[in-house]
Amino acid sequence: MRSGGGSSADAGVAFGVDIGGTKVLGIALDAADAVVAEARVATPRSGTPLEGASPTEIGDQGAAVADAVAEVVAQLEAAVGAGSAGAADAPWGARAVGVGAPGMVDRAGRLRFSPNLPQGQGVDWRVLIGERLPGRKVVIENDANFAVLAEHRIGAATGYRHVVMVTLGTGIGGGIVIDGRVQVGGHGFAGEIGHMVVDPAGPPCPCGRRGCWERFASGGGLGLLAREAALAGALPGVVARSGGDPESVRGEDVTAAALSGDPDARRVVEEVGWWVGFGLANLACVVDPECIVLGGGLVGVGDLLLGPTRRAFAELVEGGSTRPGTVIVPAAFGERAGAVGAALGARAGGLE
Amino acid sequence: MRSGGGSSADAGVAFGVDIGGTKVLGIALDAADAVVAEARVATPRSGTPLEGASPTEIGDQGAAVADAVAEVVAQLEAAVGAGSAGAADAPWGARAVGVGAPGMVDRAGRLRFSPNLPQGQGVDWRVLIGERLPGRKVVIENDANFAVLAEHRIGAATGYRHVVMVTLGTGIGGGIVIDGRVQVGGHGFAGEIGHMVVDPAGPPCPCGRRGCWERFASGGGLGLLAREAALAGALPGVVARSGGDPESVRGEDVTAAALSGDPDARRVVEEVGWWVGFGLANLACVVDPECIVLGGGLVGVGDLLLGPTRRAFAELVEGGSTRPGTVIVPAAFGERAGAVGAALGARAGGLE
Repeated sequence: MRSGGGSSADAGVAFGVDIGGTKVLGIALDAADAVVAEARVATPRSGTPLEGASPTEIGDQGAAVADAVAEVVAQLEAAVGAGSAGAADAPWGARAVGVGAPGMVDRAGRLRFSPNLPQGQGVDWRVLIGERLPGRKVVIENDANFAVLAEHRIGAATGYRHVVMVTLGTGIGGGIVIDGRVQVGGHGFAGEIGHMVVDPAGPPCPCGRRGCWERFASGGGLGLLAREAALAGALPGVVARSGGDPESVRGEDVTAAALSGDPDARRVVEEVGWWVGFGLANLACVVDPECIVLGGGLVGVGDLLLGPTRRAFAELVEGGSTRPGTVIVPAAFGERAGAVGAALGARAGGLE
Repeated sequence: MRSGGGSSADAGVAFGVDIGGTKVLGIALDAADAVVAEARVATPRSGTPLEGASPTEIGDQGAAVADAVAEVVAQLEAAVGAGSAGAADAPWGARAVGVGAPGMVDRAGRLRFSPNLPQGQGVDWRVLIGERLPGRKVVIENDANFAVLAEHRIGAATGYRHVVMVTLGTGIGGGIVIDGRVQVGGHGFAGEIGHMVVDPAGPPCPCGRRGCWERFASGGGLGLLAREAALAGALPGVVARSGGDPESVRGEDVTAAALSGDPDARRVVEEVGWWVGFGLANLACVVDPECIVLGGGLVGVGDLLLGPTRRAFAELVEGGSTRPGTVIVPAAFGERAGAVGAALGARAGGLE
């Protein structure tokens, strides 16, 4: 970290904010692409279910999320040097801000559909955030599109021209680089890979359908599989760890138990790893990447997940050993990838 | 059709050949993109199963397919005017030839893996065809990549920048246009969409796995579902049509019966239409096209298939009515799309 003083170097600092299902994470990136500040607050969630809520109620909840974004930006500003306020070349408050959100962000910055951030869905996200950050250039984009921008430009996938980024968090996010450029599709919604249906008779998904890939292969999916196993009596160690109630087992309990050597927990992580590899093989059929980057909180469990994922991919991908290999690597920026990419996008004015 | 006479107009004629699971189809395309000749021969198939066959045996079968390609080219040449032989500006035998093949065609023109053309798999396809067409420029590419080139440039998807072409034939082929260009991925294998697994416990696929999309949603998939229904006694009219043996029911029998009004056959076509729409919804999650073009023999059944496909897509696509529409249209070039695109590709020297 360093404190700014209105120097011209300060002009190169950009802010990136990643709105996740559980936290709003912000970083300040300097002109040399170093992270010089970080801030985070919990993602506001109302206790009121959104199903059946009025547009006003939903709008209020979206506004609370926008408040959290503004709070993170204020913290970043304080950290990198509010002292530069008034400097002509980099006035306080003038820095560009990139904001990544999960779900279907259209080209006007509106969040059309977001199963894992329903409190931000349908409201005019760009206005909500823009009015809290007056005078700033705000760039809004899907979170995983920003994440793949970061990993492709300065992270784990530099040097590859065809990349898929898969973020394994509350759900699954996806960002796609084709021929060296982040591609967002005809309406901005490309890379919504977590909602490929992999089992039409599978468990219900917050998106309204059944058997989406993210029900099996995300942090949320891990929790789901673990609770099933716990209810069947197959996870005694994990259940003890999480207070004795099989229904309250969370994905984090399973990864912690797996890391400490619990063989039952490892089996559940391996099962999720298989599902991750299964979906990656499907993705490879469609876009044929040279490199797949895995990000999101779930990747913190490391090779316990990556090993089974790589094995399942090799076994399941069409053409198997007759095709050139696709490398599967963890994100260089870990959970910060989306925020780093958001800062890069803010500086460039978009995904270019 | 017109006969050439060594005129300069002849220089603009290119040949395109599409190798399918059942036929090798060739067309001659003039400089104004009109089809001026057509030729076809049956795809040679050995009675010998390829499983366990030696590389020499497989090579012999690949050579027979290459012979068929050369035969189609000779027929096209005869049709457009072998009389132009010797003309300095367009010597006989010098016309460029594009050849599309199903499966994973790499950047060197080698067919790495092809579940529906196993007799061409692994051999050096470019050499096999090239040595039969001496002095010609031969461009080899995945068949559906050529098909989407044709439909995007001069067919049903002109004016769209994000297009997916899905050919419903023996299997499913896929071609993808992103931001106005046909994209082939990191190794040339993008668009192998028929091998997305949609049911891990589904029926075995010639690719070696289970539950690939094309087992449910192609001409071959129609036959499979129909034989299941026939064995269960649910398709008496179709079984009668195909000689009384439920095991010998083919997809063509079902489409013919459906077109003549048989309600049982229509139900099977509708089921296939649902599966087509289901897979298109998955594809839309990944690449978000503005336009999806359906080609291949199965589309000949028209709205009996397209209706259920469009309804399933609208019901299943993520975001449903909150996202801008994606149009689903039949190919303008029908079963010729791959060959027309191959001719366009031959003329341009590739997919650019």
